[in-house]
Amino acid sequence: MKVRVEVFLKPGVLDVQGKAIEAALGGLGFAGVSDVRVGRIITLDIAGDDKARAEAEAKSMADRLLANAVIESYKVEAG
Amino acid sequence: MKVRVEVFLKPGVLDVQGKAIEAALGGLGFAGVSDVRVGRIITLDIAGDDKARAEAEAKSMADRLLANAVIESYKVEAG
Repeated sequence: MKVRVEVFLKPGVLDVQGKAIEAALGGLGFAGVSDVRVGRIITLDIAGDDKARAEAEAKSMADRLLANAVIESYKVEAG
Repeated sequence: MKVRVEVFLKPGVLDVQGKAIEAALGGLGFAGVSDVRVGRIITLDIAGDDKARAEAEAKSMADRLLANAVIESYKVEAG
């Protein structure tokens, strides 16, 4: 089963990558761009057809490896 | 208007980050995990309420800055 894990910096944590992109877009002439945030998506295939189980397992993966709980939050979506 | 741009390596391009995560998950005891791919999400706010215009502008941003067209593909979603 395909699972998507989206990892973003928590609100309030300075997103330097986002700031850099925002500045670069301004430099390229794109006006009116604000609040640029950059996150990661991890897509993976978990063996089995049990959606609830796949989501639970992906959450465990996010807690242990995919996200840094101190500064990042994540969202898991299976199916 | 909020816009999301998802950037992934094209199929066939070796995803070393994905491979590293896959190996690390195996090492942590997660079995049955395969096809791990890692991408980026860029969320941004574009001034104005015209969805089609925002999407067109975001595509232009992706072509010029956010994605490397040689090895990456992207998907834009506004609203």
